[in-house]
Amino acid sequence: MEKFEVHILGCGSALPTTRHYPTSQVVNLRDKLFMIDCGEGTQVQFRRSKLKFSRLNHIFISHLHGDHCFGLPGLISTFGMLGRTAELYIHAHKDIERYLNPILDYFCEYLPYKVTIVPFECKKPEVVYEDRSLVVTTIPMDHRIPCCGFLFEEKSGPNHIIRDMVDFYKVPIYQMNRIKNGEDFITPEGDVIPNSRLTKPATPSRRYAYCSDTIFNEKIVEQIKHVDLLFHEATFTHNELPRARETYHTTARQAAQIALASNVKRLLIGHFSARYEDDSVFLNEASPIFPNCLLAKEGLCVDV
Amino acid sequence: MEKFEVHILGCGSALPTTRHYPTSQVVNLRDKLFMIDCGEGTQVQFRRSKLKFSRLNHIFISHLHGDHCFGLPGLISTFGMLGRTAELYIHAHKDIERYLNPILDYFCEYLPYKVTIVPFECKKPEVVYEDRSLVVTTIPMDHRIPCCGFLFEEKSGPNHIIRDMVDFYKVPIYQMNRIKNGEDFITPEGDVIPNSRLTKPATPSRRYAYCSDTIFNEKIVEQIKHVDLLFHEATFTHNELPRARETYHTTARQAAQIALASNVKRLLIGHFSARYEDDSVFLNEASPIFPNCLLAKEGLCVDV
Repeated sequence: MEKFEVHILGCGSALPTTRHYPTSQVVNLRDKLFMIDCGEGTQVQFRRSKLKFSRLNHIFISHLHGDHCFGLPGLISTFGMLGRTAELYIHAHKDIERYLNPILDYFCEYLPYKVTIVPFECKKPEVVYEDRSLVVTTIPMDHRIPCCGFLFEEKSGPNHIIRDMVDFYKVPIYQMNRIKNGEDFITPEGDVIPNSRLTKPATPSRRYAYCSDTIFNEKIVEQIKHVDLLFHEATFTHNELPRARETYHTTARQAAQIALASNVKRLLIGHFSARYEDDSVFLNEASPIFPNCLLAKEGLCVDV
Repeated sequence: MEKFEVHILGCGSALPTTRHYPTSQVVNLRDKLFMIDCGEGTQVQFRRSKLKFSRLNHIFISHLHGDHCFGLPGLISTFGMLGRTAELYIHAHKDIERYLNPILDYFCEYLPYKVTIVPFECKKPEVVYEDRSLVVTTIPMDHRIPCCGFLFEEKSGPNHIIRDMVDFYKVPIYQMNRIKNGEDFITPEGDVIPNSRLTKPATPSRRYAYCSDTIFNEKIVEQIKHVDLLFHEATFTHNELPRARETYHTTARQAAQIALASNVKRLLIGHFSARYEDDSVFLNEASPIFPNCLLAKEGLCVDV
């Protein structure tokens, strides 16, 4: 199976502590890196992860609260000092220009590479990135300001050839790619051999959904159904539900309810409030509802 | 002796590493805190130091390179979340407005306290702060952009009364403050008792000089002569002198030469380049020239 990992660089919330860094993750799909959010200190956590800086070309920012984007200026400057030349794309709500452009103008006059902001709206799901093997779509969140999660969806590869059958029907080599892509085979005699007799479906594509920050919002269930891994914020425990509602955040119990309703394979929770000294309270709350649940932690790497 | 300490929050240079945070220090004079520079991650280091956030009202920024100021947005936001109400003063080159104002406008709309930028020039020494017990003066540095060090100078307290003598001359209580402040005493008979017979001079005032970032620059010697503690940058070792010159930085040997020429009591070196795995190379280079030399290190607290 090709590499599809999520690295947690930071999983605290707005108030940084000595236990947690603010939010940042790196998705590693076949050694291409994609960063989600970039709180203060992300560049050091990125270095600590031993992932290669040069493999990162796209950063996705969920929303413009400081704990999700105050690490950008340092990261961008450091890439410059390290002699980066490849263009860096930052996908975010369009307001990011008001924050980042003055910094780029003042501090990054001689940057040896280009930073390109790719703005998106947060109102409905939108494809924000696509290449041969991956599609990234926004997942609209319900937070105090415009905010999106991201669905990372591996593209299905071509079907797998059933060697014995293509030999049996004497499929010529030059037709093989068409067969892999789902076409039927027509023999020299004019018989139609259905594709399903010649191939097995490709490995099902894996999907990772990142959902933070958001109030409990069942509208996202449809979009994240059956994902292999769901990261959902769990800022508070359920006894702090009023505070969660007031600040547009989710409790660990609610995160588990979303995972259950979406029938996801695994749940990863994070974005923990600084008020909790011991994160196991979140796991104890979520697990009874959704047992296949993991706690995020700096340095953790999860296979999707 | 009243408290006069320097806390090192970060002593790395531009490229952050997992060993060093970028530059930040806190001067603690009689439990009033003054921050010098504020690189990325400073707020977490500040928390780690156990110093009280509420005791800090003044931040001095030496220059507008990211490793000296990218921690400001996070620190300012966090103070807001913690409910700070006291005004916060940021003393820096006037260009800081181009960096900070857009951030304050966008992220800090509902900040419960006021941030006031107090701009200064970097061309000649300038008093940038003064209260009953402290004067802070800029020390012009020679760097790639306008840059200033800072001289923290404790004010002399009043003279110490010699109890036996004021008893002997029957100095009335209501005259005591005048005597402490240096006036002579005139007896009811009209005799003048010189102040020097009634008091001992106050404890000499202590001075701390912070000098970073700068190329080797002997012009500062006059201003920092005899200080109790000199922090001087030592970004490189002397075999990297051409690189130090090119980037307007100092070598450890040069920092020691400045300390020697200034006849300071103690030297503290920092702002170490990321290329050195082991900081003892800096000490080995500086000590033979100026033996009373210390290496900066995150978490270190030095009495001035």
